Amino acid sequence: MKTKHVIDTQSGKAFELKKGDTLTVIDPLGQQVSDMVLFNRKDFNEKLSSGKSLDFEESILLTKGNHLWSNRSNQMVKIIEDTNGRNDFLLAPCSKETFKIMYNYEGYHPSCLENLYTNLEPFGLSIDDIPTAFNIFMNVQFDKDGKLSVLPPTSKPGDSIKFLAQMDLLVCLTACSAEDSNGGSFKPIHFIINA
Amino acid sequence: MKTKHVIDTQSGKAFELKKGDTLTVIDPLGQQVSDMVLFNRKDFNEKLSSGKSLDFEESILLTKGNHLWSNRSNQMVKIIEDTNGRNDFLLAPCSKETFKIMYNYEGYHPSCLENLYTNLEPFGLSIDDIPTAFNIFMNVQFDKDGKLSVLPPTSKPGDSIKFLAQMDLLVCLTACSAEDSNGGSFKPIHFIINA
Repeated sequence: MKTKHVIDTQSGKAFELKKGDTLTVIDPLGQQVSDMVLFNRKDFNEKLSSGKSLDFEESILLTKGNHLWSNRSNQMVKIIEDTNGRNDFLLAPCSKETFKIMYNYEGYHPSCLENLYTNLEPFGLSIDDIPTAFNIFMNVQFDKDGKLSVLPPTSKPGDSIKFLAQMDLLVCLTACSAEDSNGGSFKPIHFIINA
Repeated sequence: MKTKHVIDTQSGKAFELKKGDTLTVIDPLGQQVSDMVLFNRKDFNEKLSSGKSLDFEESILLTKGNHLWSNRSNQMVKIIEDTNGRNDFLLAPCSKETFKIMYNYEGYHPSCLENLYTNLEPFGLSIDDIPTAFNIFMNVQFDKDGKLSVLPPTSKPGDSIKFLAQMDLLVCLTACSAEDSNGGSFKPIHFIINA
């Protein structure tokens, strides 16, 4: 069964996938990042690991053909389609501290970290359980000395990435809340589950 | 008070640092990696975060002047000296799965992950609590497409890196157990605590 879902601007959604289901994440308007975290549905202590994914895939940038791995060295999803091709694992989900420390922004600002943990709270997870996310459509550039800069996403309207679940999963996705990561404006994210 | 300590080949040690203490990690023979993880001594749910460190330092490579950050966006240590200058946060601590998946090695092999969690177990931590480590003296090269390769460390005998604790910490250090990360041989790591 195929179901379509919308993540409103600067928000998030958590949902389950069964092994063998596919998840397609779509940037409907272009230039919008989506942060994704994954947990083993049967044991939340097993979760997405940036270090293990970079280790086993031998690449900072992950696209079609790559897997995302858990802290227990198991494959969680396989990327089976990717029309844009720029996704990474380098930077943490934006948080209230990101806006304060990086942008000198005072006061409340929506953030991916808040949208991840508040959507995962009903499943019994808390803020400290959130791992470094897989940054879908995010355009983090690095030079040969390792200096990082965040540019507007290269994703065009309708660009998408499709994942095949390798185990039963709890997934949380956001429509990213950081101005600089999304070309200065906030757009929704769509996703399709094919179960 | 200054104390000197030795980490034997393919092993690890856990210890406490108080805010304001310094820790100097030394590669006595050259070409030896040491993995380091950090926890807030008062609340182990606060721990080293690769994503937050790369985010706030805006660099893949971290050296003198950089801080290492926690998942709660607090500075854990400042790097105040670094005679070699090549350290990163990209790859996860080597584990039994690393040797199986990356090197087709069957049977028991010592690993940084085992040396981290077994030394941290007396403090009440377990294998799933171990974050992606800070890879001291590790020589991970990346090209412009993000492809990763592990070369022998560039550290020479006596090279060192010195950290200033920004909070009370539980630290675990290893002498790395992976052939390819250490130029094909295993050496000890020395460290000095100045409390």
